Amino acid sequence: MPDSKQVHDELIVVDALQYSNWDREIFEENIRGGVTAVSATIAIWEDAKETLNTLGEWQRRFQEFSDLIVPARTVEEIEAAKKAGKTAYIMSFQNTSPYEHNLDYVGLFNQLGVKIVQLTYNIQCLVGSGCYEPVDSGLTSYGRHVVSEMNKWGVIIDLSHVGEKTSLDAIEASKRPVAITHANPLWSYKHPRNKSDKVLDALKANGGILGLTAYPHIIGDLVTRSTFLDMVAKTVDQIGIDYVGIGSDTSRKWSDEFLESWIRMGRWTHEKHYGAGTKENPGWAPWPEWFETPAHYPNFTDGLLERFNKEEVAKIMGGNFLRIFREGFTPTGTGY
Amino acid sequence: MPDSKQVHDELIVVDALQYSNWDREIFEENIRGGVTAVSATIAIWEDAKETLNTLGEWQRRFQEFSDLIVPARTVEEIEAAKKAGKTAYIMSFQNTSPYEHNLDYVGLFNQLGVKIVQLTYNIQCLVGSGCYEPVDSGLTSYGRHVVSEMNKWGVIIDLSHVGEKTSLDAIEASKRPVAITHANPLWSYKHPRNKSDKVLDALKANGGILGLTAYPHIIGDLVTRSTFLDMVAKTVDQIGIDYVGIGSDTSRKWSDEFLESWIRMGRWTHEKHYGAGTKENPGWAPWPEWFETPAHYPNFTDGLLERFNKEEVAKIMGGNFLRIFREGFTPTGTGY
Repeated sequence: MPDSKQVHDELIVVDALQYSNWDREIFEENIRGGVTAVSATIAIWEDAKETLNTLGEWQRRFQEFSDLIVPARTVEEIEAAKKAGKTAYIMSFQNTSPYEHNLDYVGLFNQLGVKIVQLTYNIQCLVGSGCYEPVDSGLTSYGRHVVSEMNKWGVIIDLSHVGEKTSLDAIEASKRPVAITHANPLWSYKHPRNKSDKVLDALKANGGILGLTAYPHIIGDLVTRSTFLDMVAKTVDQIGIDYVGIGSDTSRKWSDEFLESWIRMGRWTHEKHYGAGTKENPGWAPWPEWFETPAHYPNFTDGLLERFNKEEVAKIMGGNFLRIFREGFTPTGTGY
Repeated sequence: MPDSKQVHDELIVVDALQYSNWDREIFEENIRGGVTAVSATIAIWEDAKETLNTLGEWQRRFQEFSDLIVPARTVEEIEAAKKAGKTAYIMSFQNTSPYEHNLDYVGLFNQLGVKIVQLTYNIQCLVGSGCYEPVDSGLTSYGRHVVSEMNKWGVIIDLSHVGEKTSLDAIEASKRPVAITHANPLWSYKHPRNKSDKVLDALKANGGILGLTAYPHIIGDLVTRSTFLDMVAKTVDQIGIDYVGIGSDTSRKWSDEFLESWIRMGRWTHEKHYGAGTKENPGWAPWPEWFETPAHYPNFTDGLLERFNKEEVAKIMGGNFLRIFREGFTPTGTGY
């Protein structure tokens, strides 16, 4: 078996989802973990104006922490980050709330570097239904225009927290590969956030990608590295080596209070909503000891090498997401 | 004397200010006039959100009218437009209102292509005092940060409607050349919009540029092409051939009502304010017959060739603004 540390150091590692209370320590964890590119959530319930303000904070971070991080909107910028020993951060939304009801905002936020956008976050929005919405009415009229506009500008469609019918509608409507950046197959653990065979089949037919996640609330008993890796292997058997990646769903340094209020409830309810958690277990669940922070990313490579060859490991660890980014980030429209 | 039409066709022509109710006909007028680059005003009183919406409209225009217009943020894009026989439009503000009180917005709107920004429009704002404000208290604390941030991101400072003290403060504070995109020397016609020798001397020392304008309300009796060209020649004698350009202040297809309400009064007064006009003559004044629309731009070249050699004409018609753009559009900061 090849030396796993050496293999890991040479890889382009993509984490397709992190949503943290960013600071130097978190950026350093990604560097220590050898993470080349992170899709960083910058909005979940925020409107356009609030998202501008968050982008302003990132604009300052890219200057303040320029020894560790660079902004990325292209695969070339990710490859350059690898060479420079830095981590490339791709701006992404976990909701279409910043687009409000204005189709122009897809292109405008694309200009500001927002390249991956989840259509809905948990519940119904203007675009479609989330995974916890009792009735999933599918992609809305506006949603169809948003999908088409995202295709045009080169913004990748993310279906992670999206409902089943809305996901299937979006895959059918999209002319470009879509991503499920952070979810697991439903067969691995029965949870509304996880994806049915029907969705995974459609994803594969679309040429998309599934980013598997270690987020404790949705991996159930898969807490050991070995059982997690069994799930990776079985998913590869199911949908193929070219369609699987990793989206850790790492959430660093947010308080339980922030999770239980803003992250889950935004401003849409005054009653408790437990999201992926439960009334008995509402807060952040402890992460498995083999993936407490992104600094543990080498543990993925080490474990995958027991089940896959080097080329296959490279695909799962980042190569497959790079393909999606290469195909998905380029605008097809004229103008900007 | 060289054939003026042939000279004009080869020139890179820059109009440093137009503010119109844009449509295909106006874009065609600029093409017919051989105008290579236009700085297009997209905000005068609008806040950040409203300006996003206007940028959305431009995003669509750049697609709908892609046979005539291209967006430009660099001199290279302007040169490419010349080769393609199109006009390059640079997004610009005539007020810092879209920046609101948030320093981050300078960089964010820069990312969205806003490369020329006038610090104030007529009256006091968060950044400084306008040319009609009774007391000009100079550049504010926030204004000093805005100037520095504009310098950093490569956004050119425009002082056209800015008050005298605020202008002098801004020239002193700016580490990069500034522009007065559309105004005339005060000696040519006594009007608050026109610029004193003191400001012009400071402008020259800063390496900046004065865009002379044919806007009827501030050229007074200079209505013939000959008297206008005399003013150009005298301005060149005063500040030098490298510091003079043209900013027509063309305003096409706005109604008198729009001028007298939104353009002059925004939302800051419910009492009439006449701006550059007067109570007796409040609406749009007729443009001189030799410059009714930008389609008449060849008349500038033709007239200038009577007083200047080809190289000098090239500088006034666009070369000098290209130098300012080349020096002023490049960010000095890290990050984006």
